[in-house]
Amino acid sequence: MASTAPVLTELDRVARRLLIGWAGEIGATVSIDAAANLWLRRNGTDPDAAPVVTGSHMDTQPNGGRFDGIYGVIAGLEAMTALHEEGGALRRPLEVVAWTNEEGGRFAPGCMGSMSWSGYRRVEDFADATDPDGIRFADALAAQLAAEADLPHRPLGNRPHAYVEAHIEQGPRLEAEGRDIGVVTGIQGSRFFTVTLTGDTAHAGTTPLALRRDAVQDMLRAITALNALMHDPQDVLRFTVGRIVVEPNTSNSVANRASFTIDFRHPDKNVLLARGDAIADVVQAAVRDAGVTVQETFHALPVAFSPQVIDAVERAAIDQGSSHMRLPSGAFHDAQFVVPVCPTGMVFVPCRKGISHNPAEYSEPRHLTAGTKVLAQTLAELAA
Amino acid sequence: MASTAPVLTELDRVARRLLIGWAGEIGATVSIDAAANLWLRRNGTDPDAAPVVTGSHMDTQPNGGRFDGIYGVIAGLEAMTALHEEGGALRRPLEVVAWTNEEGGRFAPGCMGSMSWSGYRRVEDFADATDPDGIRFADALAAQLAAEADLPHRPLGNRPHAYVEAHIEQGPRLEAEGRDIGVVTGIQGSRFFTVTLTGDTAHAGTTPLALRRDAVQDMLRAITALNALMHDPQDVLRFTVGRIVVEPNTSNSVANRASFTIDFRHPDKNVLLARGDAIADVVQAAVRDAGVTVQETFHALPVAFSPQVIDAVERAAIDQGSSHMRLPSGAFHDAQFVVPVCPTGMVFVPCRKGISHNPAEYSEPRHLTAGTKVLAQTLAELAA
Repeated sequence: MASTAPVLTELDRVARRLLIGWAGEIGATVSIDAAANLWLRRNGTDPDAAPVVTGSHMDTQPNGGRFDGIYGVIAGLEAMTALHEEGGALRRPLEVVAWTNEEGGRFAPGCMGSMSWSGYRRVEDFADATDPDGIRFADALAAQLAAEADLPHRPLGNRPHAYVEAHIEQGPRLEAEGRDIGVVTGIQGSRFFTVTLTGDTAHAGTTPLALRRDAVQDMLRAITALNALMHDPQDVLRFTVGRIVVEPNTSNSVANRASFTIDFRHPDKNVLLARGDAIADVVQAAVRDAGVTVQETFHALPVAFSPQVIDAVERAAIDQGSSHMRLPSGAFHDAQFVVPVCPTGMVFVPCRKGISHNPAEYSEPRHLTAGTKVLAQTLAELAA
Repeated sequence: MASTAPVLTELDRVARRLLIGWAGEIGATVSIDAAANLWLRRNGTDPDAAPVVTGSHMDTQPNGGRFDGIYGVIAGLEAMTALHEEGGALRRPLEVVAWTNEEGGRFAPGCMGSMSWSGYRRVEDFADATDPDGIRFADALAAQLAAEADLPHRPLGNRPHAYVEAHIEQGPRLEAEGRDIGVVTGIQGSRFFTVTLTGDTAHAGTTPLALRRDAVQDMLRAITALNALMHDPQDVLRFTVGRIVVEPNTSNSVANRASFTIDFRHPDKNVLLARGDAIADVVQAAVRDAGVTVQETFHALPVAFSPQVIDAVERAAIDQGSSHMRLPSGAFHDAQFVVPVCPTGMVFVPCRKGISHNPAEYSEPRHLTAGTKVLAQTLAELAA
């Protein structure tokens, strides 16, 4: 079953209202910040102590799956509920956050909510991002804040005691190794680029090929050259051209404009810097006729999670009797932007064949349950 | 100055009303057929004689020019006006037609109006063609017919005595040879295809490249192989990939679908058949992971115009003292579909640098005037 839940839409608001309703049932308070990040909170015995935070995001890729993101929010709520029902008094407050626009599927880049919260960027910096219908992020955000004007506001940013995010692995390793729990050690680095090639429109039936400045043909040359630059026999490097926009995009006109995105990731900072820095020159050298602009839209070096949180997750997995392994995250998560703010970690659960961003995304109930139990115990230890 | 006049829009209707108004000023009658082709008519001394028809189309490519198509309609009206004012009685009726959707820029394929009129296709066959906003051709056509319900209807199809269409060359030959008039001998053949590659979406950050079925990368392989198939050192062959659609088209998902168009033209029927027939196999052999479908969306062999009309155009150019040359048309025109119905020809005028389907499209007033005079004299001879 496919799931398409774009951020800051009516469907997103319905999901948030559902979450708010469930929060009310366990007596959690709800608030919202200027990036529309949604916060559920239950105090411990010391309401002034720095909180322990968990959560993830609720938006999906277009035609994405039913687990990516939303699992971490629901697991957080479930853990909060279980810890409440257990009645053991935690010292620290617990908070569950639903970050705004992690996917970047409607407004690029992703992780706007967590970046704004952590101070990595200002929420204003994203104002002019537009969705495929030309709607500005600032306008969609204002509409969201207006629709939830009944919720108390809280400032962007604070300093939690720790942050732990549960998520499906979105990769094949846990399944291949037969482990129930991934103790995540960090996140590989990412650099995203947009390449735009500018040629001239011309009549497809009359213009000799030698006289054309065909942006599509130059895009072909550029991507072919980038494939060579990004070649990695180890298959550790991730290089993806996922989005292409051609103008005027009619069958009988030579294209005067072609733009494409580059999603480039690697766990080694040196590879990420060397090959990423080479992109503009490689494209320029490959292109024959078109004008070239290469814009870097996102740049995040690899991050390492906190040993304190990694160890807590591992202890919880052992206590729960879950088979587990340490591994880095191939995917990008909101947790990446929390790292500079407080001790941070993640709990992974397997997903079938590593498939994600796809309607076939699936995790078994027993794995989802195991991940939630490990998350709850980790939160309990950190909040004690 | 750019011109974007998509077919069957409000802007198109405004242009048609303007034309209808001008027709009224010279006492021409106006009618419309089931494909929304617009017909202006003035009788000669024998109202029952088969008419001599001229005209062209009024729609443009997105971000196209100000001469392609509309010149032939306005030149036809001007010729009709001049022949009327001259007072010399023609025997045959004169008709000026504005064909619907020649460009195919909004609804593919082009030439729907002339194909429907000539019986090459039925207008119903185009019902499900959709524009980029998902509007069906049938609905846009119904709206157009409703908006012009005040106009008398005429049946689709008839058998004119002859058809002559004036048009800018849309190629560089007349300018290069310093001639004012092109006596068009025929139109090269065209075959259009849509290739669709179907892979699997996957997470750009986690999925090893070896495990992907990336529709964008397979599109790259397919177009590279087609470039080799279509290689022509003579630069006579025209091969264009002008339209690309990728899904889900987000930067951080591997594409599960990529489709692209092929616009392939050649004046030699044998080349057109041999290379066109090879396309599906070449794509299939080039693609590594994706599923492949290749659909031929249009197939028109080269056509030769009528010696009777070619000679009449040439005599008119000589009489008017215009420098001229015979040449085939590289572009595709409504005249192509009139060929099987009646003796057909075309008059070309130069356009600067051969540029067309581009805001820089330009023809000099002296050339436009010369073309109109040659058209008028040709019509007068054919209608005498």
